[in-house]
Amino acid sequence: MAKAPVLTPQADDFPRWYQDLINKAELADNGPVRGTMVIRPYGYGLWERMQQEMDARIKDAGAANAYFPLFIPQSYLTREAEHVEGFAPELAVVTHGGGKDLEEPVVVRPTSETIINEYFSKWVQSYRDLPLLINQWANVVRWEMRPRVFLRTTEFLWQEGHTAHATYEDARDYAARIHRDVYGDFMTDVLAIDVVLGRKTAKERFAGAINTLTLESMMGDGKALQMGTSHELGQNFAKAFHTQYLSKDGEQELVWQTSWGSSTRMVGGLIMSHGDDNGLRVPPRLASVQVVVLAIKGDDAVLAAVREIGDRLKAAGLRVQVDDRTDTPFGRRAVDWELKGVPVRVEVGPRDLENGTAMLARRIPGGKEPVAVGELAELLPKVLEEDQALLLTQSRERRESRTADVRTIAEAAEAAATGWARIPWSDLGPEGEAELAEQGVTVRCLVAEDGSVPEADDAPGNVAIVARAY
Amino acid sequence: MAKAPVLTPQADDFPRWYQDLINKAELADNGPVRGTMVIRPYGYGLWERMQQEMDARIKDAGAANAYFPLFIPQSYLTREAEHVEGFAPELAVVTHGGGKDLEEPVVVRPTSETIINEYFSKWVQSYRDLPLLINQWANVVRWEMRPRVFLRTTEFLWQEGHTAHATYEDARDYAARIHRDVYGDFMTDVLAIDVVLGRKTAKERFAGAINTLTLESMMGDGKALQMGTSHELGQNFAKAFHTQYLSKDGEQELVWQTSWGSSTRMVGGLIMSHGDDNGLRVPPRLASVQVVVLAIKGDDAVLAAVREIGDRLKAAGLRVQVDDRTDTPFGRRAVDWELKGVPVRVEVGPRDLENGTAMLARRIPGGKEPVAVGELAELLPKVLEEDQALLLTQSRERRESRTADVRTIAEAAEAAATGWARIPWSDLGPEGEAELAEQGVTVRCLVAEDGSVPEADDAPGNVAIVARAY
Repeated sequence: MAKAPVLTPQADDFPRWYQDLINKAELADNGPVRGTMVIRPYGYGLWERMQQEMDARIKDAGAANAYFPLFIPQSYLTREAEHVEGFAPELAVVTHGGGKDLEEPVVVRPTSETIINEYFSKWVQSYRDLPLLINQWANVVRWEMRPRVFLRTTEFLWQEGHTAHATYEDARDYAARIHRDVYGDFMTDVLAIDVVLGRKTAKERFAGAINTLTLESMMGDGKALQMGTSHELGQNFAKAFHTQYLSKDGEQELVWQTSWGSSTRMVGGLIMSHGDDNGLRVPPRLASVQVVVLAIKGDDAVLAAVREIGDRLKAAGLRVQVDDRTDTPFGRRAVDWELKGVPVRVEVGPRDLENGTAMLARRIPGGKEPVAVGELAELLPKVLEEDQALLLTQSRERRESRTADVRTIAEAAEAAATGWARIPWSDLGPEGEAELAEQGVTVRCLVAEDGSVPEADDAPGNVAIVARAY
Repeated sequence: MAKAPVLTPQADDFPRWYQDLINKAELADNGPVRGTMVIRPYGYGLWERMQQEMDARIKDAGAANAYFPLFIPQSYLTREAEHVEGFAPELAVVTHGGGKDLEEPVVVRPTSETIINEYFSKWVQSYRDLPLLINQWANVVRWEMRPRVFLRTTEFLWQEGHTAHATYEDARDYAARIHRDVYGDFMTDVLAIDVVLGRKTAKERFAGAINTLTLESMMGDGKALQMGTSHELGQNFAKAFHTQYLSKDGEQELVWQTSWGSSTRMVGGLIMSHGDDNGLRVPPRLASVQVVVLAIKGDDAVLAAVREIGDRLKAAGLRVQVDDRTDTPFGRRAVDWELKGVPVRVEVGPRDLENGTAMLARRIPGGKEPVAVGELAELLPKVLEEDQALLLTQSRERRESRTADVRTIAEAAEAAATGWARIPWSDLGPEGEAELAEQGVTVRCLVAEDGSVPEADDAPGNVAIVARAY
């Protein structure tokens, strides 16, 4: 008789598989207030590693971290008309503080363009102060009617970058740089997630932006997930907040701005990109634990061996955890590490010791084989790099095999039932986009014929990527 | 004629000096909602380095990071009677979300004992799950009537640790370990701030704790600042939230708990410990910029030299910034680096180059002298360690020289006008404590005769440290 599966199989019910995995791998719980989440240590460890890798790339792009208040006066939001229209329905409002009703209610930030511009308008005086490149790691709140852990939560954690530039070109280039060199590089190189870099249509743009660049990825069920966005804000917020500078020519000029964000939603993307019916598979470059060394039994010799192997692998620069909790059955621990998606398990029992070997179990391609203990330190870094590459290949092949080139709206809608469609934007247009939206299918982004990011919605040869999305 | 000072001198008006420094060194601004603050990049850089150093120590103590929601149902707060009494007057309340009035208002977390216990009670089942050691980096909100940047703000950033243990002894020892090995070590070793480790009196205990351990430091004006606290919560929250485990003997037992926190308030402590009339002095081990290499003029040779020196010092493992903004006058930049408290400046002009030297300016002891460029990489690490030690010595000597041993309440109050008093707890007691409180003087902590942390308020020989406090 077959064992009952640990998780609902993906093929049976993908959303339930996703929720099962999050529970069983102890990634997160639902919070008590609707739509909030508790990120458990193993889930938070994934986010911490994402932060480290992203933060280094953000700093390489010249931005410095800062922190702006959680509470924004309601009046700030209303200064940029499109912005308030976009966010008003999702706001959480504090009306009571320190035992009294507040004179002016304050909103809990849904994003920080407004409050940051209030300060940029003080800090920026001259062209010498530009570009001003700021990033913040923070929590934000957007009231969610249909929450789903990591993907759409009332409170989430993110980084939001905000910059001010002297010229349109400089702002445009910086938004593109973040899109490509921070987000694109991180997602491809560390998360091993295939992302399409494109441009949002007018309908899908950020509230207050003149252009939104996006990174879209195909999840295991063929739906799309927006993994991050980088916006050109033009001078919209600069006008609303009078953010201006004295140019070299002695003129007062409005700044040009960008903002860009990526969030704990990426953890959801990681799960739905790389997870399988046995649990998560964490890309080795991201993993906080790349290798777990398991004692199969509690003999002294075995315990001494796993600790020694652990030390040797740590010394080789790997991120290692030793699992010597032999009062819990080995099988249960092995299943747990599978669920958590640790890339490599090194399993050591008394018989292995006699042979001078350990069992090497690889989570990403699957499979187990005995390896001489003395060879582990040299072998594992190669294994991990192979597995990192394999995840990216699998992610890319999924998108390629499940994307159809189509010419009609009906074909696009049909393709979106199981994957993505590519349709010339000249064949779709805003009207076709609206028609698809009625069926729950959206234009994820526009890409140029050669796959690059288009300079305009209507650039000749633009292709719309169309899908159902999270 | 003497130049006008950049800052209000400390001796003239310490609070104004503090505010001046924060503005001029670009550490923070006041936020638009009363009591909130904007932490500017240089100020945030100090906090980021504090986070790094603390986080490593917290992980060494076995705790893992996680994240709990910002929003707490109001009903949670009321489950622990003393806790709600302590925090109710400071709460910010969200009554409106997603365009509707909420059925149950939610509070913005002032601290997370309640919501964390709600989850601990689910996660802890057996003695095998203990100890459960969790930390979170987060923002919290406590409505402030008399706010002061970094020291007392409506929103602040902090870490809060929360742990559950099988026995009283284990919880007690863990609270003490955090107090000593995380907070004490970090503050002394990295911040170079002298701290007294002691025990709070019943009156000063955290709302809901059975014991509060504290770290108190004397600021430049002789007042005390509480730099961090570590609490034994006993079983108070475990009772309120039914946080229990199945013991080895098969009995359901309530857990014993701790919580512990330190915040952006430490940035205020850093300023008031080490700052002088020329600005901040950042301890080298904390500094995100330990050495700034300044080009005095914009000649090509000078610019090439500062970049080369910068690279060489970075290669020697130092945290270095090159300042080649020669369109801003050298004097203004030098004053700015003084204000920001960068420990060492290496100043290079055309004449220095001819001599193969650079001017070495040390912010911490003060003074300038020429040094051969070739010797910098070997010299500076020693200089920085010397300066690190000097700051701690100065902090310790201030406390020692401004602390008086007294026997009466009147003497204690008098000593507290300019510094600290030490008075036997048997001479003061809760009545004396109440009497001092009327004069704005508090018992900062109790210490044992030998300087160690007492096991009980009434342990024989306990000495009360009495001061005005921030």
